Amino acid sequence: MQNDKAKVRQILDAVKAAGRDSLTAPEGKLVCDAYGITVPQEGVVGSAAEAQKLAASMGFPVVMKIVSPDILHKTEAGGVIVGVKSAEEAAKAYDTIIANARNYKADAEVIGVQVQQMLKGGQEVIVGAVTDGSFGKLVAFGLGGVLVEVLKDITFRLAPATRDDALSMLDGIQAAEMLKGVRGSDPVDREALAGLIVQVSQLVADFPEISELDLNPVFASKDSAIAADVRIVVDFAAKAPRHRPAEADVLSSMNRIMQPKSVAVIGASSEAGKIGNSVMKNLINGGYKGNIYPIHPKADEILGYKAYPSVKDVPGEIDTAVFAIPAKFVAAALTECGEKKIAGAVLIPSGFAETGQHEMQEELVGIGRKYNIRLMGPNIYGFYYTPANLCATFCTAYDVKGSAALSSQSGGIGMAIIGFSRSAKMGVSAIVGLGNKSDIDEDDLLIFFEQDPNTKVIAQHCEDLKDGRAFAEVARRVSKKKPVIVLKAGRTSAGAKAASSHTGALAGNDKIYEDVFKQAGVIRARSLRELLEYARGVPVLPTPKGENVVIITGAGGSGVLLSDACVDNKLSLMPMPDDLDAAFRKFIPPFGAAGNPVDITGGEPPQTYKNTVLLGLQDDRIHSLILGYWHTIVTPPMVFARIIVEARDEMRAKGIEKPIVASLAGDVEVEEAAQFLYEHGIPSYAYSTELPVQVLGAKYQWARGAGLLG
Amino acid sequence: MQNDKAKVRQILDAVKAAGRDSLTAPEGKLVCDAYGITVPQEGVVGSAAEAQKLAASMGFPVVMKIVSPDILHKTEAGGVIVGVKSAEEAAKAYDTIIANARNYKADAEVIGVQVQQMLKGGQEVIVGAVTDGSFGKLVAFGLGGVLVEVLKDITFRLAPATRDDALSMLDGIQAAEMLKGVRGSDPVDREALAGLIVQVSQLVADFPEISELDLNPVFASKDSAIAADVRIVVDFAAKAPRHRPAEADVLSSMNRIMQPKSVAVIGASSEAGKIGNSVMKNLINGGYKGNIYPIHPKADEILGYKAYPSVKDVPGEIDTAVFAIPAKFVAAALTECGEKKIAGAVLIPSGFAETGQHEMQEELVGIGRKYNIRLMGPNIYGFYYTPANLCATFCTAYDVKGSAALSSQSGGIGMAIIGFSRSAKMGVSAIVGLGNKSDIDEDDLLIFFEQDPNTKVIAQHCEDLKDGRAFAEVARRVSKKKPVIVLKAGRTSAGAKAASSHTGALAGNDKIYEDVFKQAGVIRARSLRELLEYARGVPVLPTPKGENVVIITGAGGSGVLLSDACVDNKLSLMPMPDDLDAAFRKFIPPFGAAGNPVDITGGEPPQTYKNTVLLGLQDDRIHSLILGYWHTIVTPPMVFARIIVEARDEMRAKGIEKPIVASLAGDVEVEEAAQFLYEHGIPSYAYSTELPVQVLGAKYQWARGAGLLG
Repeated sequence: MQNDKAKVRQILDAVKAAGRDSLTAPEGKLVCDAYGITVPQEGVVGSAAEAQKLAASMGFPVVMKIVSPDILHKTEAGGVIVGVKSAEEAAKAYDTIIANARNYKADAEVIGVQVQQMLKGGQEVIVGAVTDGSFGKLVAFGLGGVLVEVLKDITFRLAPATRDDALSMLDGIQAAEMLKGVRGSDPVDREALAGLIVQVSQLVADFPEISELDLNPVFASKDSAIAADVRIVVDFAAKAPRHRPAEADVLSSMNRIMQPKSVAVIGASSEAGKIGNSVMKNLINGGYKGNIYPIHPKADEILGYKAYPSVKDVPGEIDTAVFAIPAKFVAAALTECGEKKIAGAVLIPSGFAETGQHEMQEELVGIGRKYNIRLMGPNIYGFYYTPANLCATFCTAYDVKGSAALSSQSGGIGMAIIGFSRSAKMGVSAIVGLGNKSDIDEDDLLIFFEQDPNTKVIAQHCEDLKDGRAFAEVARRVSKKKPVIVLKAGRTSAGAKAASSHTGALAGNDKIYEDVFKQAGVIRARSLRELLEYARGVPVLPTPKGENVVIITGAGGSGVLLSDACVDNKLSLMPMPDDLDAAFRKFIPPFGAAGNPVDITGGEPPQTYKNTVLLGLQDDRIHSLILGYWHTIVTPPMVFARIIVEARDEMRAKGIEKPIVASLAGDVEVEEAAQFLYEHGIPSYAYSTELPVQVLGAKYQWARGAGLLG
Repeated sequence: MQNDKAKVRQILDAVKAAGRDSLTAPEGKLVCDAYGITVPQEGVVGSAAEAQKLAASMGFPVVMKIVSPDILHKTEAGGVIVGVKSAEEAAKAYDTIIANARNYKADAEVIGVQVQQMLKGGQEVIVGAVTDGSFGKLVAFGLGGVLVEVLKDITFRLAPATRDDALSMLDGIQAAEMLKGVRGSDPVDREALAGLIVQVSQLVADFPEISELDLNPVFASKDSAIAADVRIVVDFAAKAPRHRPAEADVLSSMNRIMQPKSVAVIGASSEAGKIGNSVMKNLINGGYKGNIYPIHPKADEILGYKAYPSVKDVPGEIDTAVFAIPAKFVAAALTECGEKKIAGAVLIPSGFAETGQHEMQEELVGIGRKYNIRLMGPNIYGFYYTPANLCATFCTAYDVKGSAALSSQSGGIGMAIIGFSRSAKMGVSAIVGLGNKSDIDEDDLLIFFEQDPNTKVIAQHCEDLKDGRAFAEVARRVSKKKPVIVLKAGRTSAGAKAASSHTGALAGNDKIYEDVFKQAGVIRARSLRELLEYARGVPVLPTPKGENVVIITGAGGSGVLLSDACVDNKLSLMPMPDDLDAAFRKFIPPFGAAGNPVDITGGEPPQTYKNTVLLGLQDDRIHSLILGYWHTIVTPPMVFARIIVEARDEMRAKGIEKPIVASLAGDVEVEEAAQFLYEHGIPSYAYSTELPVQVLGAKYQWARGAGLLG
């Protein structure tokens, strides 16, 4: 059935014309009808005989209600009878209602009696739609009833939602099992219920003026999903949609900004300690090969580079301008950048929205829009793009090249990224500060990194998303190609409050972020360390070809903890087939345990580790290995590390690649072994059974979301 | 009301005599009556007039049922009428039931008609009791209904439970709010419901033969808690309770074992690479000052110590014997140890229960019991007790003294403890391997460490508890004095399966562990790293005097993440009083944010950190500080670290001590600063906003459980 948009438009126009902000129940019913959302059957009758006939056609029980413009309090007037169970009762109920109405108000105009199908049985659920400041229209689903209200067991998706989205919502609530039929009750009709969710989501997507919609309850039974009550709230006040440049424009600007042929430093300085001096030094010492143009009102040269009073005096083209001048001078210099057709301005200065100077920031946004300059910041540390040896920042130079692109909304978190990256030798392609996000934000970065051959994983810290919908739409596409990891700070109400005082951004309802991230295939980090460890480990691991994980451990105790961690991180321990069990047993002592974990026991020589790992890599049924090492004199840590890399390399030479992670239990020498393994593509951790499994879990989560596990 | 034990005994005796394994409904009702567990009113009547009168005395509705030994299928016989709403209806129902019965079976013996109060309204809940292999009798509580069954929202406590335990159960389910009255419904009578839970727990504690009990449903209303249905299952097969020596005996043995005046090494060897050689070297090189007696069949001396053929040949007393001989020789040597009245045997050898040799292990247990020697292991690495410079192990010597006592069931985890301790400079008082736990287990260690002045925190890794009840009883007392932290491996079903193949111990239902740990004041670590970090950090922190936590941060972004972490770890961010807000504002730039977090902003000099921290320490309303440092040129990492320690010391000199933890965001230099701070009593972490807050959260959890926060 086609959705009858014209009909809905007509109803909404009438509501608007009447100056109302919500629909009446009959209007709501008509809207539902237009979008194929099933509601209970009903009709108005004018006689007992008609009531008898209509009720019988719907099936019993029915509820009957007086219809009269003069009787507002129907129940008080004796004008409502519920639970009418037969045709005979229906006729009698008609007469009773009319008599009661007359008795209540003799001169009341009586239009008739409404007969309505009474729904019961099945599972009561709620389907709704809300409008979020960042994500726009969202469709919501939960079980009905007060208990679920107490447990806040509800799930959201961006509207419009696909059938798959809707089906994932049915599985996305804690009490999902209720829909599958428990204690002998029938399972609900999943297609009917998903269809209803899809239609609701389409309706609010088609008509943005519908700000809230509630179907509560919806009776979901084994063969239908019927909305017993409809509530629709509208808001006709037009909201300007957020400015969103075309993706091709975003990309061409971002390419110039991130990989500039020439960079201007506005406020460049020869004086040590000045931000404009640090930026110049970082550009020079970082090894940037393009042109560097210091901009200074009076100086002829700075740190050996010819200086210019204005960007407009520079002879050649400029791609990126780094600002290192006080806030009050930024607008004028930005205008000059615009006139010079510079692609992007890196606005290090603070003193804008974060200190309450919203107008000053808006002025910059206006200039940027007018001249088509993209703005990074203000209130940032700048950015690094290592493939271009570019350190456009006042922080220290950074030089460990790699494939992780990171960004942070906060400067402090940016510094933590830099420190961790250097300490853990996590190679990065970029580190970008987004600060106040007056213009460039997470989705602009996603668009650039999506096609950046130097980037394999994208990890972002944010406190809010200025345009959650844009982010989700882009992330949904990008995450199919490259893992996108997000640490959303301000998860809790206390955190959100802290975020709002910090950046002026009121963090949204966390459950919405949670669900939309899932819908978009984004891996959500729960902590700063998780963000960093995922960014470091996920690109190192090859993509698994299937869900079967096997643990091979020298320490039985590690095997137990690794198994727990597998469950926590949604990894599947493969049930060990008999032939493979027998094959593993050949390599391990009789008191070792095959099965999964494979417990080779503690006293074994290096060759036992190697044999079992080779077997695990060779067998097609196994898709990933988790290793538990136990430090002994027989197999010292570095011997273990080398032999594992050897085994991996032998198999790689034969074209076999599987993710391997390792947990190392032992004395301090295991730290060196863990580092060696990590540097050789095997994420490994000393004294932790959780971290290696978390990293593998993140890789799996990505691969599943991207549809790579079949 | 006194519980009528004699009555219950009489009923159970009759059930036993009849060879039954469950109670009939009337028997169940009598048992409930004897323990003051409210059940619906009921009685048997012999006439319509009696029915009328009895029903009226109970209040309506009632349900009426035929009572006849000849009519088993009451409903089929038309012998049950539910929902009887008035005296008149009761009389009529009596006649109908009798007539139906006669009609169904003319010659049936009719005893009368049972009239029973029908319960409705209020909240349906479940109260029950189960018998667990490790914890014994447990009382259970949950909401009734299929949804809760789906969500598995149920909570357990050891029986007998106190009133406080029972009240904590009402708050211990996810849907706790349901009991407080939602959407206008009445809150339940908490005292009545808790009282019922206490009585059930007392009943099963008094009568161990009651193996299962279910009150389902219990109707909890605003003024009562009535059990509508009672099911009691019994098991009269006597089970030998686990052997549990008196605590005084445990302590005197453990004192001799852990702080021996002399140690024998059975299987001592001069040959490098042998376990008996490693143990000797560790004792000697570890600096142990007591007597060391190598035991060897032929050698005269080993590593410069006079050797003896048997412990019985040693002239003086021996406290501890470390075994380094093959499994098959252990029993004979252990008997000699018994004859020598040695207090404890440290059984390093493997080849017992863990390899299926259960009988060999039972033999050792028998010898130990006979001679009153306590057994550590078998299948362990031994143990360390640093105050006595004692390394009774074949692992490397360990020498970083401190106040954390750790133990592990698994050798691999023991090695991880040693490595982490050394690497993180976590001082330890003891590291103990428990292995197969044939005898000495976690509660024996608790009894020793409870009174050990060198131990401030106890951290234990376990896969199962052989005697969960003994552990919980001891832990409940010890945790009031010293934090007890437990990493329970085998949390998940996959983990439990791995544990069972590893140690032969089937890990129990995790929810029971979770709840009993809570009841016993035990801090549960969720991962190996958490166990280690808690053991390291909790004893370093002074005990807070109240719940008010304040965050002081240079990085707004860290403040947001630290706030999230506070919520995650159940810490309370103090709402900032106006006067204190004003006082903080004096120290920070105008665009900084007071409130909580106090955001001093990134560009501030060391003095701003110091001023705000001093203020936080001085103000009595603040009980703990969380610091967020942002690496800048103005306040480099080590400058920050030193000034914070200075501030802390100034206040300490004035008698002010509060817990302080710190998160450091910055380049790699922050690692040194974090280490410096940690070594000076301020748990600090680089690149992590979660770990410092987790450690503070663990300290708070302990202090709350021990009743130290008032």
